Amino acid sequence: MPEPTLAGGVVPPVCTPLTPERELDVPSLERLVGFLLDAGVHGLFVTGSTGEVAYLPDSVRYRALEVVVSTAGGQVPVLAGIIDTTTPRVIEHAYAAKSHGANALVATAPFYAPTHLVEFPVHFRAIRAAVDLPLIGYDIPASVHSKLNAEVVAELAAEGVLDGLKDSSGDLDGLRAVLELVDTSTFTCFSGSETLADLGLFLGAHGLVPGIGNVDPEGYVRLYDAAKRQDWDAARTEQQRLRQLFKIIYVGDARMGRYSSAIGAFKEGLVTRGVIDHATTSLPMIPLNDTERAAVRAYLTDAELGPL
Amino acid sequence: MPEPTLAGGVVPPVCTPLTPERELDVPSLERLVGFLLDAGVHGLFVTGSTGEVAYLPDSVRYRALEVVVSTAGGQVPVLAGIIDTTTPRVIEHAYAAKSHGANALVATAPFYAPTHLVEFPVHFRAIRAAVDLPLIGYDIPASVHSKLNAEVVAELAAEGVLDGLKDSSGDLDGLRAVLELVDTSTFTCFSGSETLADLGLFLGAHGLVPGIGNVDPEGYVRLYDAAKRQDWDAARTEQQRLRQLFKIIYVGDARMGRYSSAIGAFKEGLVTRGVIDHATTSLPMIPLNDTERAAVRAYLTDAELGPL
Amino acid sequence: MPEPTLAGGVVPPVCTPLTPERELDVPSLERLVGFLLDAGVHGLFVTGSTGEVAYLPDSVRYRALEVVVSTAGGQVPVLAGIIDTTTPRVIEHAYAAKSHGANALVATAPFYAPTHLVEFPVHFRAIRAAVDLPLIGYDIPASVHSKLNAEVVAELAAEGVLDGLKDSSGDLDGLRAVLELVDTSTFTCFSGSETLADLGLFLGAHGLVPGIGNVDPEGYVRLYDAAKRQDWDAARTEQQRLRQLFKIIYVGDARMGRYSSAIGAFKEGLVTRGVIDHATTSLPMIPLNDTERAAVRAYLTDAELGPL
Amino acid sequence: MPEPTLAGGVVPPVCTPLTPERELDVPSLERLVGFLLDAGVHGLFVTGSTGEVAYLPDSVRYRALEVVVSTAGGQVPVLAGIIDTTTPRVIEHAYAAKSHGANALVATAPFYAPTHLVEFPVHFRAIRAAVDLPLIGYDIPASVHSKLNAEVVAELAAEGVLDGLKDSSGDLDGLRAVLELVDTSTFTCFSGSETLADLGLFLGAHGLVPGIGNVDPEGYVRLYDAAKRQDWDAARTEQQRLRQLFKIIYVGDARMGRYSSAIGAFKEGLVTRGVIDHATTSLPMIPLNDTERAAVRAYLTDAELGPL
Repeated sequence: MPEPTLAGGVVPPVCTPLTPERELDVPSLERLVGFLLDAGVHGLFVTGSTGEVAYLPDSVRYRALEVVVSTAGGQVPVLAGIIDTTTPRVIEHAYAAKSHGANALVATAPFYAPTHLVEFPVHFRAIRAAVDLPLIGYDIPASVHSKLNAEVVAELAAEGVLDGLKDSSGDLDGLRAVLELVDTSTFTCFSGSETLADLGLFLGAHGLVPGIGNVDPEGYVRLYDAAKRQDWDAARTEQQRLRQLFKIIYVGDARMGRYSSAIGAFKEGLVTRGVIDHATTSLPMIPLNDTERAAVRAYLTDAELGPL
Repeated sequence: MPEPTLAGGVVPPVCTPLTPERELDVPSLERLVGFLLDAGVHGLFVTGSTGEVAYLPDSVRYRALEVVVSTAGGQVPVLAGIIDTTTPRVIEHAYAAKSHGANALVATAPFYAPTHLVEFPVHFRAIRAAVDLPLIGYDIPASVHSKLNAEVVAELAAEGVLDGLKDSSGDLDGLRAVLELVDTSTFTCFSGSETLADLGLFLGAHGLVPGIGNVDPEGYVRLYDAAKRQDWDAARTEQQRLRQLFKIIYVGDARMGRYSSAIGAFKEGLVTRGVIDHATTSLPMIPLNDTERAAVRAYLTDAELGPL
Repeated sequence: MPEPTLAGGVVPPVCTPLTPERELDVPSLERLVGFLLDAGVHGLFVTGSTGEVAYLPDSVRYRALEVVVSTAGGQVPVLAGIIDTTTPRVIEHAYAAKSHGANALVATAPFYAPTHLVEFPVHFRAIRAAVDLPLIGYDIPASVHSKLNAEVVAELAAEGVLDGLKDSSGDLDGLRAVLELVDTSTFTCFSGSETLADLGLFLGAHGLVPGIGNVDPEGYVRLYDAAKRQDWDAARTEQQRLRQLFKIIYVGDARMGRYSSAIGAFKEGLVTRGVIDHATTSLPMIPLNDTERAAVRAYLTDAELGPL
Repeated sequence: MPEPTLAGGVVPPVCTPLTPERELDVPSLERLVGFLLDAGVHGLFVTGSTGEVAYLPDSVRYRALEVVVSTAGGQVPVLAGIIDTTTPRVIEHAYAAKSHGANALVATAPFYAPTHLVEFPVHFRAIRAAVDLPLIGYDIPASVHSKLNAEVVAELAAEGVLDGLKDSSGDLDGLRAVLELVDTSTFTCFSGSETLADLGLFLGAHGLVPGIGNVDPEGYVRLYDAAKRQDWDAARTEQQRLRQLFKIIYVGDARMGRYSSAIGAFKEGLVTRGVIDHATTSLPMIPLNDTERAAVRAYLTDAELGPL
């Protein structure tokens, strides 16, 4: 069996289903992987931000990875988020992710410890040197409070340290700059935007990592296919539909943070579609209440996303 | 032997000495603890930001804690930083810190995962419920990008969830508000400022957690003692001297981040004083060069801090 | 002669040429207007950020407006920036702009005085009520440090308070939300981006306000025309060319702020093309030096933008 | 009569009373000046942030200055805020303020137009060169979104460009650095903090510019006098009382911005004390409602600040 490659396409950041006791819900995770594969996704991104990586103890992270790798069975590449504060801790995750079967690794810039831009290359070089797997830089300023700028990404791409970028910065100008500076035949760019995915592909990005792709993977596959055949009107129309669905993330906005509201809504959507058993989220996230859950279900009905 | 209590005083955030191979340097750590105890400090804070906690793999964190606990031998309380992204991961550190002998725990607000203010109490309550040790809230917006505001701290103090605050926010107005809102006979406030420590004590803070207290613990003990006897002129004069010494943190500013420069300078200062063997810092921090190291030594000479 | 309307198209934010003594250079301004009209622009935006509005005393602002109105002679609409800290001061500019012949007004959210989102509608309603001219909201967080969010814009559009939006926020998600919420047959959206203008038009924006459109108005007219006929490949190709030219804004980056570098480069470009006489900028902007000016000229040569 | 000097002391930022039609209320302003002088203030700061400078058209700014200068009659120095976006506009205000009788000028760093730190000295030098009056740098990052750092202030102090600093940054570390770097026998530092005024004086600041000093000038004069005689316990006790009173600024917090709430509360307090006739604030500030006004009056009763 040939090794799956980093070809791009739709690579959802897989939700991590939990039992009501907040243990990993393995059967639900297996069903979720099957659901995504059936929808035609091109890869799976485990232990990303949508996967609640920042909440999961190491043992849960690695078990989730193991389950996804085993369920996917090599049909698509599995990317593992190795998210931690800074280099030595990230490298530990890199070893573990490799040993649990990841096909590629996804690492952010350092966080918590204030880190200068000149130290970013040191960080990524050390990770790449430690573990021989494709490495994707994860640009997510909302979480790490710094930006992976285009010049640094291009330098590390040229060195062979970074094999790709997951851009969750919302900065399309920066993404465009990366696409201009790297060799796009070997370096893979993913847009992490749910709502501007069509624009990312229009600029030349190779793939998408949409959180709400857990709930409507078919929609993003259609959007991606339309873009591939350069049918921009179709891509834009699909994107408009998905933008409407994405409003589920705001159902809990008035009572809690947008992040808790979004993760809760994705999981509630997956319960509604019959994919996972519980919408439980990690502590200290506040769960959606009945009104908010009903609002999620109404959005799904509007989007004609019923139970399977 | 009675259990040490959270009485305040000078509680340096202990540096974590490393060998040139970036392993924990146990003999240096033991000497550092002895040096601090000899200087009369009132407690030790292990695996704080100055201790490079964000860089240290779990095994190194716990080994460092073990060494400090064992070297301190119950003479002063040992506080352990249980720094991680959010609740379940922090709780794992809390268990481990207790089992390795910590007398109190120090936890920040969640980071990486955007967390709403209403979720902060959930976070601290869950930690406190899991592990029965005094819990200190650590307010460090520069690292976690949110503020532990005075109302939340006071609410958690009144509930018995938080037993103290380490304020590294630089926001003296907020510290003053906390001191007005809590019962200061049972709730312990530490100022994390190196350069405004006299002001923190003037406002009624119980203790100090100064990074450069690793290098000049005697200075902060003198400052603290002056404040205790309300000799504000003496406290201010000592503070001025320590402000001058604190300029060692800028020696590498032009080449790297301020954080790397500061940690490198503290360690170089400890090498100069003959306390630890190597000034090695964690990856991806850039090491000080010879010019910068000479500048550190010159500041120490000016401060009359020679080798022991 | 029918009144020009807010139809969209390319509406450059006209530079304000100054003499070496930093007086308004009227002949240069007249030539600049002629140059832009010859290139086929669809409107002129006077006293915008690119026009150094924040530096210009009132008398210079109004004189510049007068010159542009008179030179344009009704061929295209003239929009006037009425940029000031908050409502009463902005209204004074609105009166003056109307009396000097402006066809529409462009106002930002309040700045300097911290202003709550609920006060934004009060601000724009008061301006619109005071002066009967089409009013365009100017979303420029980099200058005013707050965001005109889509809901507020849509509410004010529905009320007839705002007739359009100039989006210089770089937030394409927000622009898309506005375009979804307003009646696009009566409400005009302009993208203020030089480098993502094609994306703005792809999303349905009606027009462009590119600073570097002073130097290469033909390029933006070509880009706009391609988008109008839905030839997205041509639009993207033209945009790529303009992105390359836009790098002139970085020539002074190492010595001064990006803003001074950009304004200096635009003016140097106009001198190079023979349109204006001097590249003088307002105090306290640092002027480009000879090396930086040569770099600007090299970019123009690469873009085949010679003297007229 | 000798020229008043910049000796420090309590220098309230004078509120600008308005009629219900939002015209300048001259009799109220005259009474306010008399009230402040009777309380023993050492100077008056007109058209500062508390004086709603960002809202006032030029004609109102200068009329207010004229009224204050004439009412003060040379008993104390009158400082005029010359607040505007950048250099040429600020210089116009400087000329006008001098011609209307100001004894000193107060200017911020440039705002709206992104300005590099290296351009700040150019800005202040140009203002000082244009108008021969003492010039005070006004550090107010909350409004201008940049910091006047200590090195720049010290450089301009040494050059004779700046004669003083009004620090409204809340950054006591920065204030302390300025006090260490300048010649404090000729350079005057004011703290703009209402709630940490005692700390500012403890550090060596010469004076105070407290917004709520409009409502309780006697309190700040007592605090200042206690600090002058180094009675820090008395200063701290007075500060605690004033902190309690300062909570009036939060009465409208839930409905509007903190700034509108604060200005509204200061004016309501002055109406309650019988000093001014109306609590009217400028557009687009939302006025306090009856509940909020009652809350202000209750705080004044608690502070034993009845009608005169």
